[in-house]
Amino acid sequence: MADRATLEDLVRFQGERVRVLKQQKASAEQIEEEVAKLLKLKAQLGPDEGKQKFVLKTPKETLTGKYGEDSKLIYDLKDQGGELLSLRYDLTVPFARYLAMNKLTNIKRYHIAKVYRRDNPAMTRGRYREFYQCDFDIAGQFDPMIPDAECLKIMCEILSSLQIGDFLVKVNDRRILDGTFAVCGVPDSKFRTICSSVDKLDKVSWEEVKSEMVGEKGLAPEVADRIGDYVQQHGGVSLVEQLLQDPKLSQNKQALEGLGNLKLLFEYLTLFGIADKISFDLSLARGLDYYTGVIFEAVLLQPPAQAGEEPLGVGSVAAGGRYDGLVGMFDPKGRKVPCVGLSIGVERIFSIVEQRMEALKEKVRTTETQVLVASAQKKLLEERLKLISELWDAGIKAELLYKKNPKLLNQLQYCEEAGIPLVAIIGEQELKDGVIKLRSVASREEVDVRREDLVEEIKRRTRQPLCIC
Amino acid sequence: MADRATLEDLVRFQGERVRVLKQQKASAEQIEEEVAKLLKLKAQLGPDEGKQKFVLKTPKETLTGKYGEDSKLIYDLKDQGGELLSLRYDLTVPFARYLAMNKLTNIKRYHIAKVYRRDNPAMTRGRYREFYQCDFDIAGQFDPMIPDAECLKIMCEILSSLQIGDFLVKVNDRRILDGTFAVCGVPDSKFRTICSSVDKLDKVSWEEVKSEMVGEKGLAPEVADRIGDYVQQHGGVSLVEQLLQDPKLSQNKQALEGLGNLKLLFEYLTLFGIADKISFDLSLARGLDYYTGVIFEAVLLQPPAQAGEEPLGVGSVAAGGRYDGLVGMFDPKGRKVPCVGLSIGVERIFSIVEQRMEALKEKVRTTETQVLVASAQKKLLEERLKLISELWDAGIKAELLYKKNPKLLNQLQYCEEAGIPLVAIIGEQELKDGVIKLRSVASREEVDVRREDLVEEIKRRTRQPLCIC
Repeated sequence: MADRATLEDLVRFQGERVRVLKQQKASAEQIEEEVAKLLKLKAQLGPDEGKQKFVLKTPKETLTGKYGEDSKLIYDLKDQGGELLSLRYDLTVPFARYLAMNKLTNIKRYHIAKVYRRDNPAMTRGRYREFYQCDFDIAGQFDPMIPDAECLKIMCEILSSLQIGDFLVKVNDRRILDGTFAVCGVPDSKFRTICSSVDKLDKVSWEEVKSEMVGEKGLAPEVADRIGDYVQQHGGVSLVEQLLQDPKLSQNKQALEGLGNLKLLFEYLTLFGIADKISFDLSLARGLDYYTGVIFEAVLLQPPAQAGEEPLGVGSVAAGGRYDGLVGMFDPKGRKVPCVGLSIGVERIFSIVEQRMEALKEKVRTTETQVLVASAQKKLLEERLKLISELWDAGIKAELLYKKNPKLLNQLQYCEEAGIPLVAIIGEQELKDGVIKLRSVASREEVDVRREDLVEEIKRRTRQPLCIC
Repeated sequence: MADRATLEDLVRFQGERVRVLKQQKASAEQIEEEVAKLLKLKAQLGPDEGKQKFVLKTPKETLTGKYGEDSKLIYDLKDQGGELLSLRYDLTVPFARYLAMNKLTNIKRYHIAKVYRRDNPAMTRGRYREFYQCDFDIAGQFDPMIPDAECLKIMCEILSSLQIGDFLVKVNDRRILDGTFAVCGVPDSKFRTICSSVDKLDKVSWEEVKSEMVGEKGLAPEVADRIGDYVQQHGGVSLVEQLLQDPKLSQNKQALEGLGNLKLLFEYLTLFGIADKISFDLSLARGLDYYTGVIFEAVLLQPPAQAGEEPLGVGSVAAGGRYDGLVGMFDPKGRKVPCVGLSIGVERIFSIVEQRMEALKEKVRTTETQVLVASAQKKLLEERLKLISELWDAGIKAELLYKKNPKLLNQLQYCEEAGIPLVAIIGEQELKDGVIKLRSVASREEVDVRREDLVEEIKRRTRQPLCIC
């Protein structure tokens, strides 16, 4: 046992055993016992400055305790030093960590990047294990509901401009939920787990949710019924005002705060011209632990199914809320930075757009190319290269076929396939005359354009009506 | 020894030992011996369908054998199933794998994403362990040098538009290098390692490179001298023509092919108007194994050091080449897809731009906000929200302070700090008159603009001269 190499092997072995137990989600006591053995072995091993140290560092702690019941979806990895690592689960927790580490007290930013979930993928519904998130957040100590209203405005702006059909944004507040649970008689320790039951109301009936609360989570049936009376309500600002007068809820400080904020929020959203898109929905709970105030979630309103079009079950397409405590969890002194943000479900939206395109048999253009530089005869590669270079230098999006002597027909066919609207055709006669033949792919119309006017003519014909500059 | 749990622990332990040995770069024999022990233990353990299997799967093979001596920089990871995983080293190998897996025979695309290197970071030179690459590639069977010329055109276009100073693109061809090595008498087995010695000529003298070739790599001194006569040459198309007549090199089929292609490339680059940026440099070798033809690398030409400006040692800022064999390595039937591509060193370029900005004490604008919506008196939050919503809906980039009653001075100061050029000021008198006061932050000039003309006026004042539409 005094042999250092053997001891090191044993430490490594014991470390591996701890890791496997954690993977298998062994009980806390069991893991603690094995960690104790590991520490004892390490003590025997003594210090060894020169060699790799076996420090029990768990970057996983950055992620745990933030996602509630979804924590099981965290994708674990191990790096080669033996550290327990995990893949990024969302962009919010890393954002909060970044603010705390860099002592930033206010910032507004967007971030589009990949995140990972150890979930069952469902390709057709746009659910993957590796997928993009697109987040926007406003951090800082500000007057109530102004940044929150901006987040909702941005959410509506994005969803409207994507033209994926009519949508509704459900809004609620964690403090209203907690207040509701309190006045209904839910014990404090069960708030988060009851919250996640309530969150299922958009997918299953109240009866099923109630049976989960009573059967699995041990709530008294009359307590569940009282919750049911509240969480099945939804409406506009008038529902907020009604609940502000509710004899039970108005006695709860938290609920009052939440309702007061929602009233203010509705005022601002009216000024932003989006109040008609918003529904105060008491069943909206959101699964994540870190929300502390306003929460919201956008859902598409199913258009009446058209012939041949399958109903698209994609769930929510955007969601977010206020998380005032998360940054403080990463700050050594617990300094808080209030935050509010939203996440756009880009992959889900893509799958909706793709399915619609397919149903309508619409072709998606995969390039932005404005013009193909083509030649009518052989031996004109050099002329094509010269012309395309002129067009590129003028900022025109142009392509050519990478062939020395392509056939004109092949060049025109390529435009049809790729959806390129214009062809600039060089011929021997045109070169002599100092013109280029400009052909519209759709109408097959051809006109001679003086070479010095070509750039302007292409720009004129392909100008985007949407361009804002 | 018959106890299954104990056996499983031993298998795990032995697996861990193999992993550690690999980490410590133990000899191949030592690792093989330990793997043999592992397999023996696993045989004793017998099959167990229900449980986790210990299959020796190495996704790392996707990466190894592609980067030559740089392979040591691959960042290994282990996932929780015990697989040996690695982080993406560049975007080229994953691109090639993607083409092969999806049986794509031609595509042109760009890709901006993170890659990882287990290298010593050098922050000031823009070298990190995690960093962005920005790649552009053209894959497909095409007539020679047309896509290659387009890659070089794009590289020059990007570097010119970034305005980071004058630059030069070194060009060579792997076949010319291999031909040179062959006619100089380098044994075939030493081509790649001698190639990576030659590649150091941009950083160290020929004497040092020669001593590495002879001392470390066992080349005969006269062979090294012969190589030296070639690789110290650089020039334009005339050097290509001169080497096409070289009595030794012109006898080598590979070298002749490379030189013929370079001649054609120079023709096309002349038509693209960038031949003056290109230098045929026989010392350019590029470290990576996968190149098969033309290779290129852009370097900044150091401007004469200005007062107070440190010389910026950043090495190459963009590089690439032709890799015709890589896709085939991932195809079960070895089907080849010729590719050519380039990578822009975005992080290095950022560090150059940042250092220059700092040296010139220039301030970098971090937002694109065109206008701040401000108020001159208290109680105008609602009016600010209404106006900013109008501006947002019209596509104007606008901000406001998230305060109910901000002071005008604070709002103006915020514009100065954030570099926002315009302020739209709402006051009680202006509301009565149906106007908005538009203030230029730089000149402090203020004019009253009719509310219905405000959007147009802001667009007119903040129009970008660079906009192409």
